[in-house]
Amino acid sequence: MVKAAVIAAPGGPVEVREFAEPELEPGGAVLETLYSEVCGTDVHLLHGRLPGVPYPLIPGHLSVGRLAETNGPLCDVEGRDLSPGDVVTFLDVHGTCHSCWYCLVAKASTRCPSRRVYGITYGAEEGLLGGWSERIYLKPGVRIVPLPEGLDPLLYMAGGCALPTALHAIDRADVKLGANLAVQGSGPVGLMAAALARLSGAGTVIVLGAPRHRLDVALALGADHAIDIEAVPSHERPEAVRALTGGRGADITIECTGEPRAIPEGLRMTRDAGTYVVVGQYTDAGEVALNPHADLNRKHLDVRACWGIDLSHLYRAVQLLARHRDRLPWSSVISGEYPLAQAAQALRDVEERRAVKAVINPRA
Amino acid sequence: MVKAAVIAAPGGPVEVREFAEPELEPGGAVLETLYSEVCGTDVHLLHGRLPGVPYPLIPGHLSVGRLAETNGPLCDVEGRDLSPGDVVTFLDVHGTCHSCWYCLVAKASTRCPSRRVYGITYGAEEGLLGGWSERIYLKPGVRIVPLPEGLDPLLYMAGGCALPTALHAIDRADVKLGANLAVQGSGPVGLMAAALARLSGAGTVIVLGAPRHRLDVALALGADHAIDIEAVPSHERPEAVRALTGGRGADITIECTGEPRAIPEGLRMTRDAGTYVVVGQYTDAGEVALNPHADLNRKHLDVRACWGIDLSHLYRAVQLLARHRDRLPWSSVISGEYPLAQAAQALRDVEERRAVKAVINPRA
Amino acid sequence: MVKAAVIAAPGGPVEVREFAEPELEPGGAVLETLYSEVCGTDVHLLHGRLPGVPYPLIPGHLSVGRLAETNGPLCDVEGRDLSPGDVVTFLDVHGTCHSCWYCLVAKASTRCPSRRVYGITYGAEEGLLGGWSERIYLKPGVRIVPLPEGLDPLLYMAGGCALPTALHAIDRADVKLGANLAVQGSGPVGLMAAALARLSGAGTVIVLGAPRHRLDVALALGADHAIDIEAVPSHERPEAVRALTGGRGADITIECTGEPRAIPEGLRMTRDAGTYVVVGQYTDAGEVALNPHADLNRKHLDVRACWGIDLSHLYRAVQLLARHRDRLPWSSVISGEYPLAQAAQALRDVEERRAVKAVINPRA
Amino acid sequence: MVKAAVIAAPGGPVEVREFAEPELEPGGAVLETLYSEVCGTDVHLLHGRLPGVPYPLIPGHLSVGRLAETNGPLCDVEGRDLSPGDVVTFLDVHGTCHSCWYCLVAKASTRCPSRRVYGITYGAEEGLLGGWSERIYLKPGVRIVPLPEGLDPLLYMAGGCALPTALHAIDRADVKLGANLAVQGSGPVGLMAAALARLSGAGTVIVLGAPRHRLDVALALGADHAIDIEAVPSHERPEAVRALTGGRGADITIECTGEPRAIPEGLRMTRDAGTYVVVGQYTDAGEVALNPHADLNRKHLDVRACWGIDLSHLYRAVQLLARHRDRLPWSSVISGEYPLAQAAQALRDVEERRAVKAVINPRA
Repeated sequence: MVKAAVIAAPGGPVEVREFAEPELEPGGAVLETLYSEVCGTDVHLLHGRLPGVPYPLIPGHLSVGRLAETNGPLCDVEGRDLSPGDVVTFLDVHGTCHSCWYCLVAKASTRCPSRRVYGITYGAEEGLLGGWSERIYLKPGVRIVPLPEGLDPLLYMAGGCALPTALHAIDRADVKLGANLAVQGSGPVGLMAAALARLSGAGTVIVLGAPRHRLDVALALGADHAIDIEAVPSHERPEAVRALTGGRGADITIECTGEPRAIPEGLRMTRDAGTYVVVGQYTDAGEVALNPHADLNRKHLDVRACWGIDLSHLYRAVQLLARHRDRLPWSSVISGEYPLAQAAQALRDVEERRAVKAVINPRA
Repeated sequence: MVKAAVIAAPGGPVEVREFAEPELEPGGAVLETLYSEVCGTDVHLLHGRLPGVPYPLIPGHLSVGRLAETNGPLCDVEGRDLSPGDVVTFLDVHGTCHSCWYCLVAKASTRCPSRRVYGITYGAEEGLLGGWSERIYLKPGVRIVPLPEGLDPLLYMAGGCALPTALHAIDRADVKLGANLAVQGSGPVGLMAAALARLSGAGTVIVLGAPRHRLDVALALGADHAIDIEAVPSHERPEAVRALTGGRGADITIECTGEPRAIPEGLRMTRDAGTYVVVGQYTDAGEVALNPHADLNRKHLDVRACWGIDLSHLYRAVQLLARHRDRLPWSSVISGEYPLAQAAQALRDVEERRAVKAVINPRA
Repeated sequence: MVKAAVIAAPGGPVEVREFAEPELEPGGAVLETLYSEVCGTDVHLLHGRLPGVPYPLIPGHLSVGRLAETNGPLCDVEGRDLSPGDVVTFLDVHGTCHSCWYCLVAKASTRCPSRRVYGITYGAEEGLLGGWSERIYLKPGVRIVPLPEGLDPLLYMAGGCALPTALHAIDRADVKLGANLAVQGSGPVGLMAAALARLSGAGTVIVLGAPRHRLDVALALGADHAIDIEAVPSHERPEAVRALTGGRGADITIECTGEPRAIPEGLRMTRDAGTYVVVGQYTDAGEVALNPHADLNRKHLDVRACWGIDLSHLYRAVQLLARHRDRLPWSSVISGEYPLAQAAQALRDVEERRAVKAVINPRA
Repeated sequence: MVKAAVIAAPGGPVEVREFAEPELEPGGAVLETLYSEVCGTDVHLLHGRLPGVPYPLIPGHLSVGRLAETNGPLCDVEGRDLSPGDVVTFLDVHGTCHSCWYCLVAKASTRCPSRRVYGITYGAEEGLLGGWSERIYLKPGVRIVPLPEGLDPLLYMAGGCALPTALHAIDRADVKLGANLAVQGSGPVGLMAAALARLSGAGTVIVLGAPRHRLDVALALGADHAIDIEAVPSHERPEAVRALTGGRGADITIECTGEPRAIPEGLRMTRDAGTYVVVGQYTDAGEVALNPHADLNRKHLDVRACWGIDLSHLYRAVQLLARHRDRLPWSSVISGEYPLAQAAQALRDVEERRAVKAVINPRA
C-alpha cells in the first residue's frame, strides 16, 4: 500500500490515507517521492476556491523523486533515456492535446482545454496523481525532466513551481539589460521573479511585500530594495517606486500577489510606455476598479497576462537552477520540511505566512 | 486680419474672432486653411474636460490647406522641397524634443513631456495655432506632409485625425492575415479601425456601436458585422462576438469608445491569448471594475494601450489613403461642412451624434 | 486495386502502377483524391535532388479529396467531426512529435526531426502516401482540414502548397500597412506571396520573375509592378526596385526563387533596416558570394529564413482562400489538369515553365 | 594652443599637432580629455579603409573628460544640468536629424544620412572633433552623458565604444534566460558581448578567438568556454560549438570579427531556428560564399545585422558599467595607456594584437 495525504473535501480534513500500488499502463512510470511542494494553490484547494476540483484530492503539483519503475522505454525532451534510479521532476500539466485550435493555430498551449493538472484537477479517485504521497503514478505522456547532476533535490524544491511560473512571467516581460523592475508580492513567485530579474541583468529590482522575513529573503535573492507593504500604504507605493527609479516608475512591473487591488497600484508604479505583467491572479478574488484613461491609455502601457506554464518553462527552470545554484541563496525560501502526517500543519504555516515555502517529505 | 472660431472658455461661447496676420520666424510658414476637423476632442474642449488647456482656444488639430508663405526653405520627411501653393497637412503634435529620456532612451516619443498640440494645448494667445481659422501659422519644426497628387483634400478629411490614430492602434494590434477583429465604437476612430482591419487582411471584422447610420458606414467601410449596442445589452455582447468567431471571441479587440465600461466588456469578447488594444480612453471618464483573474490572468491576454501619434502614423495614413482612395467609400464618414460662423452648430451635431464627422470650411 | 503514378527512381521513369487497397489502422482514413498538385519539388524529386527520399515514390504532397472511409471518429482542429463524404485537404507533414526539444522548448516544430512528408519522404513501399493516386491513406494523426462550404476544390488547388508556404513567409515578414514589398520569383510561391502582400495592405508590390505570362498572373493577383528578369539583368534589379520605392528599396523583400544568386540581389534591393525573408531555397543549389559589410551589417537588415509549414499555415490558408475567393483571380495560376497517365508530361510542363501550376486529376 | 594627435593622411604619418582653442557656439562646450580610446576602427582609419573620411583627422570617437567650459545651459537626457567640472562622456554620433524618413518613419536613426561621427567623419579642419586631443569641442546638440558617481573614468574606458556596440547587438539578439551563446571574436566588441551575455543570464557562453591572452580575458569576463581559433580550424568550429551545446549549436551567435569568412562559420554553429547577429563587419573586407539552402533556409535562422549605436545604447552602457563595476574584471581589457606622442605606437600595438585595448591619455 501507498500512503498519501489527502484533502478530503473543501474545508478539509487533511488526512493520511492508504492507496493501492498503481498499475502501469504502457508508457507509464512510478516515482518514489523525495519531496513535494506546499504551494499557495494548496491553501486555495483546502478552502475550495478553485472550480472543477475533484475531491478527495492528493495535493502536490510540483514534486521530485526517484524513478522506481517504468513500463517501456521513456526519454526526456533531449531524447535521453530515463531509467529507474534517476532523480527527476515532471510537468504537473498533463494531457495537452497538441491537436486543438489553441495548441496548433493560436500556439497558446496553456489554454488547451484538455489540460489536466497533477495535484489540482486530477482527484485521488483517478490514482496517485498528486505529490503528497510516497509514490506518484506518472501516466503515459507525462513530461519528465531529470535533475542535472549536482542539483540537489531539496535545492530544486526552493525553486519549486514558482520558478517556472516566474520564468514564464519574465519571458513575457522581455527584460532588456538595465531595465528597472518592480515585483509586487513576496511569496514564492515574487521571490523567484526578483531572482530571475537579477539573473536577467535588470537595473534596480524592487520587491513590494510582507512580512519582513520574506523581504529579507528577497534582498538576499537579488532585490536592491524591499518596500514593506505593512508600513507603506497602497496609495504611497507608486511614488515610493518612482523615487527609486529616477522619478519615472519601473520599466517593468510583475504582479505576483493574488490580490485584485494590486492591479491599479501596479499600473501606477509602472512608467509610461512600460510593461506590466499579471501572473499572480490565479484564483478569482473579485473585482477591482481602475481608471482606463490614467492607468492604461495615457500611459501607453503594455499589460501582459500570463497563464500557466508549459514544458519549456519547467525544463529551462531546472537548467537555470543547476547553472546558478551557487550564485544565489535559493534555499533561503524553504522554511521547513513536513512529513505526510503534518500536511495540515504545513498548510496552516503557509496560509499564515509563517513559512515562505513548506515542503512535504513523505519519507520522514 | 484673419478670422478664426474660438472656444472662449470652458463651456463656451464659441465665436468668430479676428486676429492679426502671423509674423513668420525663420522656418515658419502660413497655411491657408481648406478644411479643419471637428473631432470628439473638440467637444471635450468645449466642456473643459481636458486638463491644461489654455483658453481662449482656436480648435482644430487636423487640417489641410495650401501653403501661402514660407520663411526660408522647408522640406517634407522625404526631403522634397515644399513651396507656396502646395496642398499639405501637418502633424498637430509639435515640439517633440528628441532629447529627453522618453524620446531617446525609451523611444516612446508620444510620452515626450515637451509635446504641444495644435488646437488643443496651444491657446489663441500664442498665435494662429488651431485649424478653425482662415490661416494657420506653422511654427518652425512643424512636420508638414504634402498630399499626394490625386488625393482630394476633402477625402483626406474623411480619414482625419482618426485615421493615424487608428493606424497606431492597428500597428500595436499586430494583425496577422485572417485574424478576427472586434472594434468597440463606431465614431471616427472605430470606423477607421474597421477600415484598416479590412485593409490588413483581417478575417471577420465586427463593429459594436450606435446609432444605426454609423453602423451602416462601418459595414460600407469593410466590417462584416455590426452589433447595435442600443439593441444588444453590454453583458450579451461578448457572447454575440463569440457567436461570430467560432465560439472563441475575437483574436484582437480594439477599444475606440471613450467609455470606461467598454473595457471589461472588451476583455470578455476577446479570445484567450488574444490581444486587446485600448485607444479610445482619451479623457478621464472615471473608473471601471474588472476581474483580474477572469478578465486578464486566466485569459493570458495582451493589453496594449496606445497614446497619441507621431509623424510616422500621419505620413503613412496619408499614403494609405492615397493608395486606397477608390477602394473604400471613405467619404461616407463626412456628414457636413460648416463655415466658421457655424462652428458651435458643428460641435452640437458631433456631440449629439447627428454627424459622424463634421468639417469646418473657413472659406465658406 | 488503386492506381497511382510513381517516380520509380531518381531520373524516372514516371509510370502508373497498381497498389492494394489500404488497411486502416485505428484513427486512419482513406481519401478519394479529387486533385493533387505538381509542384517544383516534384521536379526536384524526379531528378533525385532531395536527400533521403525513398524511391519508388508516389508524389503529390498537397491534395484534396473526399473522405471515403474512416476507422473510428476523427475531428478537425476546431473539434468538428469529420465524416465520409466530406471534402478535405490535409497537412503533408506527418509525425511531428510534440515531445522533442525543438517541438517543446524551441517551439520550432518545423525543425522536429520526426517529421515525415506525404509525397516526399514517405515512399510507395510504405503505402498510398502520396497524392498522385486514386486514393490516399491518411495515417492516424494526419491533420485533416475540411474545405469550407463554397470553396471549390480546384480553386483550392490554385493556392496549393504555395499558399501556406507564402503565408508562413508573410507572417515572418511582419508586414505593416503600407509597407513596400518586393517578391523575387514568379513561381507559385512568389505569386502567392504577392497575393498575400496585397491582402495584407502592402503599399507597392513588385514581382521580379519570368516568363512574361507568369508576370501577367502576378499583376492580376495584385502586384503593382512586374520586373521581367529576362529583360533586366541582375545587377540592375536593385536599382529598378529603388526607382519604384522612393529611392530606398523595398521595406520587405521575399525570396521565392530557389536560385542562390537571388540572395545578394535581394539583399541589395531591400532598404536599410528592412527585412529580407528567405523561403525559396528549398533544395541545395550551391553557394553564392555576398558582401557581409555592404549587404548586411551597414544595411542593418533583418534576414528571416523560413522552413516548412505547420498546421496553422495550412488551416489559415484554407480560411483565407475561402474568405477572398472572389477578390483575386486565384485560378489564373492553374495551367492545366492531367490524368495519372500524363504525370510525366505534367512534370515536363512545370520544369519547362510552360505551366505555372499543373494539377493531377486521378479521376480523369 | 591645444595639442592633438592626427592621422595626416591615409597611411600616416601619425603626429602631434597644435590647434587653436575652440570658439564656442551657443550650446557648445569644451571637454578636457581624460582618456580617449584606440579602437580597431582607428587602425582602419590609418590605412584609409573607410570611405568618406576627411584627412587630416584627429581620431578618438569614444572619450571621457571633464567639462571645462559651456556656452549656455546644457543638460543630459535625464534633464539634469551639466556644469563645468562634471566628468562626462558623449555620443560620437552627432547630427542625427530627427526629421528624415529613416529617423521618423522607419525609426532607424542609425541609418540617418545626416549623421557625422567624432573622430571618424569629422576632420581636423572642422575643429577639435576627435578625442586624441587635450581638449574636445562639443558642438551644439552633442549628446553628453555624465559618469555616475563612483564610476572611474579609466574603468569606463574598459567598456569603451565596444560596450554600447555590444549592447546594441545583445538587444538585437533578444537573449532569453538560459540561452546558449557563441561569440565570434575576442576583440573589444567580442569581449563585451560575452560579458553582456553573462549579465543577461545566458546559459553557456562560448567565445571563439585569439590570441590566448584575449581568451583569458574572455573567460574572466564570464565566458564558460574559449575556443582558440589558432588551434581549431574554421570547419571544425561549428562542431566544437555543438559539442558544448547539447549537440544542437548555439541558440544565438554574435559575430564580432570583421572577417567575412566568419559569416558561414557562424551560421553553421547556430542551432536551427536560432539567431545570428552580425555586428562586426564594420569595414568592407570583401565577399564570402555561403549556401543559402543549408545555412539559411533549412535552418530557419534569423539573421540580424546591427549598425552603429544611438544615445540609448551609450546611456544604458554607462549605467550598466556603474551598476556592475565590481562584478566583472572590466579593467582586464585595458592593456596600456599612451601619451599623445605615442599614438602611432598605440595603433601598432592594437593592430598587432599585443594590446586588447589601448587608451590615449593626453595628460600623460
